[in-house]
Amino acid sequence: MSKSGFVTSIRRQSEDFPGWYNDVVRKAELADHSPVRGCMIIRPYGYAIWESMRDELDRHIRRTGHQNVYFPLFVPRSLLEKEAEHVEGFDPQVAWVTRAGGKDLDDWLAIRPTSEALIAEVVKDWIQSYRDLPLLMNLWNNVVRWELRTRLFLRTAEFLWQEAHTFHATEQEATDEVATGLEAYRAVCEEWLAIPVIKGRKTENEKFPGAVYSHSIEALMRDGKALQGGTSHMLGQNFARAAGIEFLDRDNQRKNPYGTSWGFTTRMVGATIMTHGDDSGLVLPPNVAPHQVVIVPIFRSDDDRLAVAGAIERVEAELAGVATMSGPLRVTVDRREETPGSKFNHWELRGVPFRLEIGPRDVAAGQGVLVRRVDRLKETIALDALAAELPRRLAGYQALLFQRALDFRAANSHEADDLAGFERILDDGGGFIHAPWCGDGACEKRINEQTGATIRVIPFDAPDEAGRCLVDGRPSERRVLFARAY
Amino acid sequence: MSKSGFVTSIRRQSEDFPGWYNDVVRKAELADHSPVRGCMIIRPYGYAIWESMRDELDRHIRRTGHQNVYFPLFVPRSLLEKEAEHVEGFDPQVAWVTRAGGKDLDDWLAIRPTSEALIAEVVKDWIQSYRDLPLLMNLWNNVVRWELRTRLFLRTAEFLWQEAHTFHATEQEATDEVATGLEAYRAVCEEWLAIPVIKGRKTENEKFPGAVYSHSIEALMRDGKALQGGTSHMLGQNFARAAGIEFLDRDNQRKNPYGTSWGFTTRMVGATIMTHGDDSGLVLPPNVAPHQVVIVPIFRSDDDRLAVAGAIERVEAELAGVATMSGPLRVTVDRREETPGSKFNHWELRGVPFRLEIGPRDVAAGQGVLVRRVDRLKETIALDALAAELPRRLAGYQALLFQRALDFRAANSHEADDLAGFERILDDGGGFIHAPWCGDGACEKRINEQTGATIRVIPFDAPDEAGRCLVDGRPSERRVLFARAY
Repeated sequence: MSKSGFVTSIRRQSEDFPGWYNDVVRKAELADHSPVRGCMIIRPYGYAIWESMRDELDRHIRRTGHQNVYFPLFVPRSLLEKEAEHVEGFDPQVAWVTRAGGKDLDDWLAIRPTSEALIAEVVKDWIQSYRDLPLLMNLWNNVVRWELRTRLFLRTAEFLWQEAHTFHATEQEATDEVATGLEAYRAVCEEWLAIPVIKGRKTENEKFPGAVYSHSIEALMRDGKALQGGTSHMLGQNFARAAGIEFLDRDNQRKNPYGTSWGFTTRMVGATIMTHGDDSGLVLPPNVAPHQVVIVPIFRSDDDRLAVAGAIERVEAELAGVATMSGPLRVTVDRREETPGSKFNHWELRGVPFRLEIGPRDVAAGQGVLVRRVDRLKETIALDALAAELPRRLAGYQALLFQRALDFRAANSHEADDLAGFERILDDGGGFIHAPWCGDGACEKRINEQTGATIRVIPFDAPDEAGRCLVDGRPSERRVLFARAY
Repeated sequence: MSKSGFVTSIRRQSEDFPGWYNDVVRKAELADHSPVRGCMIIRPYGYAIWESMRDELDRHIRRTGHQNVYFPLFVPRSLLEKEAEHVEGFDPQVAWVTRAGGKDLDDWLAIRPTSEALIAEVVKDWIQSYRDLPLLMNLWNNVVRWELRTRLFLRTAEFLWQEAHTFHATEQEATDEVATGLEAYRAVCEEWLAIPVIKGRKTENEKFPGAVYSHSIEALMRDGKALQGGTSHMLGQNFARAAGIEFLDRDNQRKNPYGTSWGFTTRMVGATIMTHGDDSGLVLPPNVAPHQVVIVPIFRSDDDRLAVAGAIERVEAELAGVATMSGPLRVTVDRREETPGSKFNHWELRGVPFRLEIGPRDVAAGQGVLVRRVDRLKETIALDALAAELPRRLAGYQALLFQRALDFRAANSHEADDLAGFERILDDGGGFIHAPWCGDGACEKRINEQTGATIRVIPFDAPDEAGRCLVDGRPSERRVLFARAY
């Protein structure tokens, strides 16, 4: 909690979205820049938000049979180079340890940009028989991908993430696993973070280096740009072959297993900010909010102060341990020596779902004023009804934010059938653009060069629809999802 | 779970302790070596043990008012060099990133060996007034200290740990904080891991580089060697001065705050193994055991198999969610197609506190045979009493292991008053040696060179006792704790 009571001002979302975003992240004390180029410091409030989504995703990962493990930070250069497409994709972004313990290293060590190459090398000792499969592992760790243009949470040289790595006896099992990973991400995004997403397949140009194909979920931010919210990759036998992993199958044949990997990162803190936030700052869905309700005492005289403090203590005691859909109710009381106005500003900036104001007249009437963050809707509520009502209000608010984001996406999703229309939409605020594409990577690149938009995914639920490619007019079988993206 | 049913043999603890340790770690699938020199892979079972102690320590850290944060992996060389003693202590162990993003770096980046230097630099922007203090932060992360001779969990080039970093307006508050950190470690060691520890102060030679003084807890392993189980450092104003952190105090004077830092690492998984393990493998205290009870069905005929399976399903359902002192009861049923003997071996190697054998005659009698891991004590127990009795049995077993470790320590703690006696004790199996020391670092070094033992700590509870230094005969005011150590 900031100990200063000055009203914090931030830039307006509608006028300067990047400036607004930066102000929210820094002034709500979520994260900050560090003396290390491109690396961020995650402050307590931002880290608590990350911990909430991390723990929820961890529950999904465990429930689907994966086990947490740890692999080294370093990937020797000789291993990284085994899968040709993989190293080509990551090499420009690698940070290299060339010297350690006072000596120059013969085999340089990459700080892991991702762990496929190392894991494939290790598990070849663990996978001997079909009985050793499936191997379902998950890692929570830090990775480094050197970036020149960084933005807090969204693009940083070091970030925190989860990377699952699995191996399977059959291609079908691996196909199912790619879907399991993606579904975990959808569930956390939609049900925990209240961020609606579209599932789909990445184009060849956009897939993970070394993968057979990549799936992702795509969300729409309030500035009309898309954000990729998690990716799940079919690695096929690529890494297994490169590392020489073989197992004896039921049919007594030696085979390479099929691999998958999937990852979800701290950039989702940024996605949460940009999906729900407004000109007053953060707007947090109750499931992920470190504080769900903040109680602000209102008083002028010392007598009033005492009466209000007493009532708040009783409320606090009554609310302790009350169950909500995301664990015990998280209530905080702001007892700082500040004006109510500066406290309102402080907690609105931090996106706390509900504020409960209690003044002397409220105490006399056994009530308080409950104010909903996103629209400042006020209601008078009996203090002895809080324990029963707050969990319902929070569930309603969670649903409201999701619906609000769905509505925003609907209002900012468009169809375009030619390049002129496509560019008009981008000029007019952007958003999701569903448009026909022939499937040729050259057309994809040309659109990107001309407009800055990329194909986010080929959505799984895109209906068959004959059309003509935006660029070269060749036949298209369905619309794909375009947007400018983070 | 290993899918092969071969009985796994390990070396004997009494004959080859290092060999036994290595066998336990690898054959119980806790951890393994990696293709990266000095770095380990933590496998699911070992990682679950780490997660248990991590989560318990995290609860202590939060309860005492600390907040989790994240700081970058990298410390620029220019920052690491600001505190002279600090850089001198860590420089030989640093791994350096000299090249990143395709370019050589001007300011090399150390992979953090610890984060004091970076944090001091950052918080100078956050600490302006006494109202910004205390600043109580905690980080869960990975650090690298380049080691040539490594041992799984105990000494690895990369390890996982928690590092708390705090800043205070007064020296007294920092003094109290050093004690808070150490007490959290004592509580986790003694109450969670059942490892008795001795609290004390490190000598000048052994303190943290850059600290004013260091406190630690010391435990005794079953081979008679000591292991440091967590350290808590008074940094005084050293790092604050080096980084230029100043705050305006209540008296309107600008001052440097006082700092502390304290850390607890994955080596404590190794300490748990070496405190409790025996010739059959791991012995886990119930609080930290990933599985507390394993149920093994016993049958020969198919009819028996069905009857036993049915009874076990009923037991499983009845035990689901039963509360124990460390959360819901963790029960697993071993339904693999293996002999009971190989299953017994499998779970004994993994240190599961209780095995419950259920055969057809047991089903008929409504009972099972409960076998305690550490001494194979058997009792017949009614199946419908399990839900009530198992939490008590686990609490009793937790206390038993702690008492067993206390007894072992008592039997292996000695006093020595001269160097000949001191060396006899070391030749005779080692252990803790309480002996007089004059306080001179030269004597301390001489003992180390001659015997391999070091002063572990000057125990807080060592009574005043006039004596003469082991080495040079000068006066000593109390005994200090010597041992050979990990």
